[in-house]
Amino acid sequence: MLELRRPIQIGEAVKRVMGHQLGGKKELIPIEDCDHRYLAEDIIATHDIPMFTRSGYDGFALRAEDTEVASSEFPLEFKVVEELAAGMVPKNELGPFEASRIMTGAKTPKGANAVIALELVKEFTKKGEKYISIKRQLKEGEHLSYQAEETRCGEIVIKKGTRINPGVKAVLATFGYSQVPVAVKPRIGIFATGSELLDVNEPLQDGKIRNSNSYMIEAQAKRIGAEPIYFGKLPDEIETCYEAISLALNKVDILITTGGVSVGDYDLMPDIYKRLTGQVLFNKVAMRPGSVTTVTALEGKLLFGLSGNPSASYVGFELFVRPIIRKMLYSDHPYLKFETVSLASDFPKVNPFTRFVRSKLFFENGEMMARPVGMDKSNAVLSLAKTDTLMVLPGSTRHFQKGDKVTALLLEDEEGSQTLWQDSNRNE
Amino acid sequence: MLELRRPIQIGEAVKRVMGHQLGGKKELIPIEDCDHRYLAEDIIATHDIPMFTRSGYDGFALRAEDTEVASSEFPLEFKVVEELAAGMVPKNELGPFEASRIMTGAKTPKGANAVIALELVKEFTKKGEKYISIKRQLKEGEHLSYQAEETRCGEIVIKKGTRINPGVKAVLATFGYSQVPVAVKPRIGIFATGSELLDVNEPLQDGKIRNSNSYMIEAQAKRIGAEPIYFGKLPDEIETCYEAISLALNKVDILITTGGVSVGDYDLMPDIYKRLTGQVLFNKVAMRPGSVTTVTALEGKLLFGLSGNPSASYVGFELFVRPIIRKMLYSDHPYLKFETVSLASDFPKVNPFTRFVRSKLFFENGEMMARPVGMDKSNAVLSLAKTDTLMVLPGSTRHFQKGDKVTALLLEDEEGSQTLWQDSNRNE
Repeated sequence: MLELRRPIQIGEAVKRVMGHQLGGKKELIPIEDCDHRYLAEDIIATHDIPMFTRSGYDGFALRAEDTEVASSEFPLEFKVVEELAAGMVPKNELGPFEASRIMTGAKTPKGANAVIALELVKEFTKKGEKYISIKRQLKEGEHLSYQAEETRCGEIVIKKGTRINPGVKAVLATFGYSQVPVAVKPRIGIFATGSELLDVNEPLQDGKIRNSNSYMIEAQAKRIGAEPIYFGKLPDEIETCYEAISLALNKVDILITTGGVSVGDYDLMPDIYKRLTGQVLFNKVAMRPGSVTTVTALEGKLLFGLSGNPSASYVGFELFVRPIIRKMLYSDHPYLKFETVSLASDFPKVNPFTRFVRSKLFFENGEMMARPVGMDKSNAVLSLAKTDTLMVLPGSTRHFQKGDKVTALLLEDEEGSQTLWQDSNRNE
Repeated sequence: MLELRRPIQIGEAVKRVMGHQLGGKKELIPIEDCDHRYLAEDIIATHDIPMFTRSGYDGFALRAEDTEVASSEFPLEFKVVEELAAGMVPKNELGPFEASRIMTGAKTPKGANAVIALELVKEFTKKGEKYISIKRQLKEGEHLSYQAEETRCGEIVIKKGTRINPGVKAVLATFGYSQVPVAVKPRIGIFATGSELLDVNEPLQDGKIRNSNSYMIEAQAKRIGAEPIYFGKLPDEIETCYEAISLALNKVDILITTGGVSVGDYDLMPDIYKRLTGQVLFNKVAMRPGSVTTVTALEGKLLFGLSGNPSASYVGFELFVRPIIRKMLYSDHPYLKFETVSLASDFPKVNPFTRFVRSKLFFENGEMMARPVGMDKSNAVLSLAKTDTLMVLPGSTRHFQKGDKVTALLLEDEEGSQTLWQDSNRNE
């Protein structure tokens, strides 16, 4: 009855998953809807920025060389030949001691190479014509933004795989991307297993609990940019189960089941993996929680058998499912961002396996710290609500103490990492 | 022509905005759709967790006191009286030297106070009945999760105003919240002004630029949990402008205009504020960029006149609009989270006003640092794409140097802060 499973190291497990190249797909969507999506192409500057030399201030454009001797004692007069609002095209080229009234953002006239602020000039009229007098010397380029000083037409300005934030959206609008090339959201199917599970709207029954894993995984999938599809609860009967999974696989890129992967008498999943003619990448990982995570590749899809235990399935998703989703979103930083943090409290429990401890990140005087958020029993649901970080505690025979430097995986980060952190655990 | 505006301090400006209590509203939505929304009520545990004492392991439940003398030399035999899968209700109370086969998560039978792992027992049959033998002593409570050890029915488990992350969603499911009380998304209207603006799908014209601010503000509003409504471009004619704004105000909680707030000859907004019979909270703030930000309160709404300049309008939104939105989302942490960081490069420009420098946060050996992202001209759009932080450089006559400790406002953070950072600038 007991099947012997050989645990593999975490790094090796992630590598096996990432070796299965599920392809990303591209679609064009209206810019209005592109928030939080991932770019499927590099974004190219379709024109210089600025597109033309423009004024950075409300004032008067003129030739800096004409102002050389201006001072309080010796103010200089300039004839105002034109008035330029933002959006207008200058008609005149400025000659010596000519100026154009110019607003912020307006294109500067030919000949002009500086702008003096409105509040620094005196305006007056002479023989029905407008003039200004100025009392200081201007430097060439003062209050000007030169054409192309920010970027040149044709340059790559934002890289493929970037998540669209407000600044990225502004750049897309600037360059006229009314349709934005984004990665199609990978479709993540979810099944729950377990006859102890009640639906969220069912009344309580003795001995049973409500299904929370499916909702949690839905949320994890959305957080990282995928589209979850909840297929409901798998029945406890192997034939029906097998058919449901086979059908669902046709509709998704990745299928996740929770529960039933252990060695209990009612854990059907191992038998189902055998019937599906896929390749089992691994069925045990040297880690806590989530050691019984099983991943199968078949027909260009991946089937993740996560533990039924909330914390274990949470960790399993973040470690194994998240990076492959990010890869399908064209990221070259698919892995969880990791940083070295100080442990904010003692962690006395000893374990020979690498542990992922649900934690909350915080800062003290610019130092990054993490604190375990509540009980470390792997069925604790409440602590997951406060979790924004997984602390990685390598397998050890000693206790971890407050102040120890440990690796933290940042779950709310959008940027990711090019590499997986180095798991220093070598126990199996 | 030049109107004199008295700049007020940033802290005072934020205080005046936050003094206008725009009320939050509540709605019930299906749990499936609640991701990234904000809770409008405290969430109460509707039952104990665990709901019943349960097994944390696949194995056999028994009475620890019966195992006292068990050892390799002296194995003890237990009669297996029942088999308990997760979800089942035990029928028998265990007597001396009786055991129940039990799966992870199953309710323990009366009398049982410990579980021994499946792999540590030997199973055998005697006279047609099932038995196990065990070779070690068990501690009371071993592999058990006791009823209510995580939380008790009636306790507040998640606070009002919390953003719904995967762990929060799991808790909601656990407690049967199939309908979730969330804050109605505040409706944020957006108008652009400026005859230099082209729509995102218009071909380029000399002297003009594309409207990027409206898209950026849409994205900023979505990032913080609001619902943006873009009303298009305001005309350059004051009567039409006034009518459009009056109409729009009926449809939103907050109205934002970009551009036209300066002192240029074409800046109509100040005149429009005068015609609207609201109360101008301020029309100048001692800061860069964004000093011309104007905020008006009328009819229980707020009208934000942000600068037309992308960086200034970006900063204006984050400083003044974001916290009032968060307040409408029931947050008691409405302000931007701030941390002390090390400046990662020299910043030689001197300015008497507090500056907000678009920056990127990173970590080095657990130390938090920030680096300015590109040119600091206030019209730089590209740098906004890389911005996840605003460094606050107080007004000063000295240069800032690499390694200086400065305040950073974290834009991608979801948690926020109960208080505004202390602006140490006292220049006006």
